[in-house]
Amino acid sequence: MKVPKGHFFPDLKETIPIFLSYTGSFLFVGIYWLHHHLFQTSKKVNAKILWANLNLLFWLSLMPFAMSWLNESALSKSSVILYSLLIFISGFSYKILAHLVVKNEGEHSTLAQEFEKDRKGILTGVLNFLAVGIAFFYPTISIIILILVAISWIVPDKRFEKAYEKQE
Amino acid sequence: MKVPKGHFFPDLKETIPIFLSYTGSFLFVGIYWLHHHLFQTSKKVNAKILWANLNLLFWLSLMPFAMSWLNESALSKSSVILYSLLIFISGFSYKILAHLVVKNEGEHSTLAQEFEKDRKGILTGVLNFLAVGIAFFYPTISIIILILVAISWIVPDKRFEKAYEKQE
Amino acid sequence: MKVPKGHFFPDLKETIPIFLSYTGSFLFVGIYWLHHHLFQTSKKVNAKILWANLNLLFWLSLMPFAMSWLNESALSKSSVILYSLLIFISGFSYKILAHLVVKNEGEHSTLAQEFEKDRKGILTGVLNFLAVGIAFFYPTISIIILILVAISWIVPDKRFEKAYEKQE
Amino acid sequence: MKVPKGHFFPDLKETIPIFLSYTGSFLFVGIYWLHHHLFQTSKKVNAKILWANLNLLFWLSLMPFAMSWLNESALSKSSVILYSLLIFISGFSYKILAHLVVKNEGEHSTLAQEFEKDRKGILTGVLNFLAVGIAFFYPTISIIILILVAISWIVPDKRFEKAYEKQE
Repeated sequence: MKVPKGHFFPDLKETIPIFLSYTGSFLFVGIYWLHHHLFQTSKKVNAKILWANLNLLFWLSLMPFAMSWLNESALSKSSVILYSLLIFISGFSYKILAHLVVKNEGEHSTLAQEFEKDRKGILTGVLNFLAVGIAFFYPTISIIILILVAISWIVPDKRFEKAYEKQE
Repeated sequence: MKVPKGHFFPDLKETIPIFLSYTGSFLFVGIYWLHHHLFQTSKKVNAKILWANLNLLFWLSLMPFAMSWLNESALSKSSVILYSLLIFISGFSYKILAHLVVKNEGEHSTLAQEFEKDRKGILTGVLNFLAVGIAFFYPTISIIILILVAISWIVPDKRFEKAYEKQE
Repeated sequence: MKVPKGHFFPDLKETIPIFLSYTGSFLFVGIYWLHHHLFQTSKKVNAKILWANLNLLFWLSLMPFAMSWLNESALSKSSVILYSLLIFISGFSYKILAHLVVKNEGEHSTLAQEFEKDRKGILTGVLNFLAVGIAFFYPTISIIILILVAISWIVPDKRFEKAYEKQE
Repeated sequence: MKVPKGHFFPDLKETIPIFLSYTGSFLFVGIYWLHHHLFQTSKKVNAKILWANLNLLFWLSLMPFAMSWLNESALSKSSVILYSLLIFISGFSYKILAHLVVKNEGEHSTLAQEFEKDRKGILTGVLNFLAVGIAFFYPTISIIILILVAISWIVPDKRFEKAYEKQE
């Protein structure tokens, strides 16, 4: 975030889009970080899990770029498609990671039981996928869907919390 | 910090405001980091605490921006208001975090007992709030108040230290 | 990665070389990070190991620079030589680190037994070295060799995984 | 490190000063990091130690700036004075940190015994101080002294290693 040249509040106007991108990226990465933290019920890792982790990290690291473009192009169709695609891929990468961790824990682990039916995860994937398609026609609607989905994840995954508590 | 074009000490003059911002941010974030470290008496976390942590981190991460503006606009009224507001919010966010940690520890924990009357914390909040108001009229006085409050926190929170030692 | 000025997909074209550099660096550093992680079978460290670690980190930290030059100069001879040299040195630094860790573990450790014949490591070193030489004449062939070698390492070192599992 | 505009090795010339600064900073911070790592014989911390740690970190974080100026001003008198001053202060900050850690460990700890006579540390301090003075007249000699002192610390502090081994 570059400091504005002017000395007064109106001069901050030029900083608003960058500020919004920053806040958005912070929140988005925060949601994943949070779930990741609760993840650590599982202490066991293997090479596949580490790769899945890196894969997720890669897509998340592109978020600030996509969000900046979103803001600077004033929600242009192209930028919304790119952005929703990135969100979809990030969600999918998270799903892969979660799957590998649960598998590594063993079928009868607390985590596996909690995860048997991942309705919320599947719904999120479907909505994110729809958002990509809708972006080709109505970018604004696409963004609204994505924001609503993100909000639904601010409250962290109860299943992890449960597994977390049981373990202790 | 950009390296000055000139080769002599007077050429460093242009770097002074950025250096001051850097030092200020370093010190300010340092104070929070320090208290946060002592915080770790508590090993238990939950989703709320993680969010409170992220929230505090968010406001702190804006400090270098606010401090740079402060310096580059030579303590303009707008920049002092923004800055003091940020300090107030950071302090409040810290208070929320501390509250959640103490609550999570249980009412009878060492930490809870030490924290029963948080006179220093409340006084800090009141002074920071006053600084925001005063900034609308006398920015310089506002800055002096904020610096004095910051200095009072360089000596870390004895209560955490006590709880820390008792635990060991 | 700078956000493009234009608002449409074709405007992303200018970002492609930087994106490729970024992805390549991410993957390359990821491979090392992964092996490093599995390394941690060994908890013992000494000053030599720490230096070997720093040494490897130094060369890896130059990767984004070399990859950017590679892209921006459209695989110029000079850039490919620099790049392949860097890969060779990184591989060699990793070999030194692995050697010191194994030595520190003791000759009869699981890690030492797995590492007795490091055919893959030696082959990699030879191929990387050849790539440097070939770069003076056919930069493109050099790059192909390096990519193939990198791919062969995406699947992590089974020996570390074995030692890792045995330990647990 | 900015990628050069040209495509050939001679074009790398412009990158050399920045590369040297980078390497120097890396090495210098590496030396401190190394000693710091070996430090961790001591698990106990207190508020003073944390501040001493932050203080050292602050001065080290200014190294890249000072080294860049050194290179870009071609060892101008001013830049050498600033640089040697920074090295002196960093060394002094390290000394304070080491002192507090040893004190915290108790007089009869392994670390305290090893540290009773810190001849190398004192000699380093004296030489660094001399380097500051000499920089006012012969900057080049000043730099040579500082490089020699740095080299003498690449081999890490045997005392820490000894304490480290005894503890295990």
